[in-house]
Amino acid sequence: MTTQPVEMTVHSAQPYNAEPPRAALANRDLTPLDAFYHRNHAVETPRLDPATWALRVDGRVERPATFSLGELRQRFAEHSEVVTLQCAGNRRAGLLEVAELPGETPWGPGATGTARWRGVRLADVLRDVGVDPAATDVAFTGADRPEETEGAPYEVSVPLEKALAPEVLLAWSMNDEPLPAAHGAPVRVVVPGWIGARSVKWLEGVTVADGPSQGHYQAVAYRLLPADAAPARGRGVALGPIAVNADVLAPADGAEVPAGRVPVTGYALAGGDRTVVRVDVSTDGGATWAEADLEPQASRWSWRHWQAELDLPPGTTRVVVRAWDSAAGVQPADPAELWNPKGYVNNSWAHVTLHAIGDADG
Amino acid sequence: MTTQPVEMTVHSAQPYNAEPPRAALANRDLTPLDAFYHRNHAVETPRLDPATWALRVDGRVERPATFSLGELRQRFAEHSEVVTLQCAGNRRAGLLEVAELPGETPWGPGATGTARWRGVRLADVLRDVGVDPAATDVAFTGADRPEETEGAPYEVSVPLEKALAPEVLLAWSMNDEPLPAAHGAPVRVVVPGWIGARSVKWLEGVTVADGPSQGHYQAVAYRLLPADAAPARGRGVALGPIAVNADVLAPADGAEVPAGRVPVTGYALAGGDRTVVRVDVSTDGGATWAEADLEPQASRWSWRHWQAELDLPPGTTRVVVRAWDSAAGVQPADPAELWNPKGYVNNSWAHVTLHAIGDADG
Repeated sequence: MTTQPVEMTVHSAQPYNAEPPRAALANRDLTPLDAFYHRNHAVETPRLDPATWALRVDGRVERPATFSLGELRQRFAEHSEVVTLQCAGNRRAGLLEVAELPGETPWGPGATGTARWRGVRLADVLRDVGVDPAATDVAFTGADRPEETEGAPYEVSVPLEKALAPEVLLAWSMNDEPLPAAHGAPVRVVVPGWIGARSVKWLEGVTVADGPSQGHYQAVAYRLLPADAAPARGRGVALGPIAVNADVLAPADGAEVPAGRVPVTGYALAGGDRTVVRVDVSTDGGATWAEADLEPQASRWSWRHWQAELDLPPGTTRVVVRAWDSAAGVQPADPAELWNPKGYVNNSWAHVTLHAIGDADG
Repeated sequence: MTTQPVEMTVHSAQPYNAEPPRAALANRDLTPLDAFYHRNHAVETPRLDPATWALRVDGRVERPATFSLGELRQRFAEHSEVVTLQCAGNRRAGLLEVAELPGETPWGPGATGTARWRGVRLADVLRDVGVDPAATDVAFTGADRPEETEGAPYEVSVPLEKALAPEVLLAWSMNDEPLPAAHGAPVRVVVPGWIGARSVKWLEGVTVADGPSQGHYQAVAYRLLPADAAPARGRGVALGPIAVNADVLAPADGAEVPAGRVPVTGYALAGGDRTVVRVDVSTDGGATWAEADLEPQASRWSWRHWQAELDLPPGTTRVVVRAWDSAAGVQPADPAELWNPKGYVNNSWAHVTLHAIGDADG
């Protein structure tokens, strides 16, 4: 563990979009707050006063209500969950090697991180206000007002079935510290297994509805488009749960290492409600694979770290990793297979290039 | 719809293992009984007398019980579900093109089918006998006694969470006809979204347990092994839910078709509890793709048929299909990527070769 500050790669200052280097994520169940990626849509980070903040819960409910932070804490049982969040744009850089993606942030491998989130279950709040059994979705409204929606607040939804799942939290704490303003204070949603864009920060409204959100970030953006399609309202498929993914976290891409036995480590994340059952590492481009050792998983909703020891000859080796989920789903080989016009959900085999120095037998 | 008998490909007579041609599965929500694949492990098909048959429910339960067929029908509400079953060995022929798989049945594309199953919910039966909340799994024992287990009955299990899911049935009817002896009469289990091997036929016992079955068909067979591993007890990962898959059902592989506009149809199946959100068809090996039209899905647990119209020049074209699931999971391109020593769960891109005859402009 280092006490040096983490050098974030800042993709843009306003909105603030930044990711940590691989090493800051390696070998830790929980990502330190100063190494957690920032993905913002609005230029202004909302600064909400927790003393006056209130959550509105409305829509297809029997008893629309507002809850202060104190009321949320008093009325509902506190729960915590270790959850990995991952931006739909994580690893977009790999898609940019296939074809350009104008206007899209070139995220590397660091738009993911894991924290212990503490708060109340969304399900408990929804049960308290009484959900119309005919409702299908639950929308979340943030206090952030992105320029691309011309001042309309950030809004997305999840299906009611997921909203009622015990793992979905309204969280005010991150790694046992108060939720920082940059991560959505005073309260954000945490939707385990789904793209980070559904875990709405600076939460102000929860609305039970008859269909999915028609807001920009679900009806236009954060959709999987065919390679030859242009983004348009309703085109393609709204991204929700994420598919199995993995990456190398150490050594760094391009690192010099001593030839011979080289430990390599990284993470895998199954996505949705699946688990990681195997991670494979290859030094011959995927012609042959060695099984990595899997570390214990901190929670059902967190990533799983893996370790492998490679025997590297002097020279340059590309280390490739892929994971399998509990349905025997495996990552596709090539980013070209899944390239899409918004550059989302790159879960192709991940890789780093290592330069081994010296005599392997020395 | 034809009234001609379906010509099954019989891989072995004893045990009886047979699959229909692609065309028999095409464009039908429900697969006719005479076109439903047969996957057996024992030489003798059990012939159980429904009048004397009884289901034993025991293990970690408060009130072990046996139920006659009449008692099952009287005591519990009847439910039906349209469910696609798929053998873990479906499409093994594609893996055989990568490397040999001695002793394994060379299943083609037809080891899958969809039926309306009617019976009672396993969950209702389990609640009736009272499940120990500390239990984790539920084992199913069939009346079939395969030679490879030296007379021990066929046995596998599912996690308790799945056993309690409303879609898991103890079924006595298939497409509104009494369950045929060949498909497990009088009662079989139907476990939607999971490999067919968990849907135990000729059910005789349901045992609530503290861990997964240690029987041959879960602890040794039906496991995903690394490519260089030998089957051994506990090696690899037990297959359970299945990953997204798709195939072409018409025209047949190798068919002659008129050049020009050629309709192509097939199915996609998401597996687990996911849904199919997109199907792509390519005539250039996956360099470019066209979206197929998706038919309505008969149920959450059934396959989804798709249609595409291709413009084929005279000559030979390889038509490739792949599907995406609701977590943006996509099929891997090449069977070599997932080849495994028992030849299971081939969900690589599927293909047929078509020979277009004549003048495309004619």
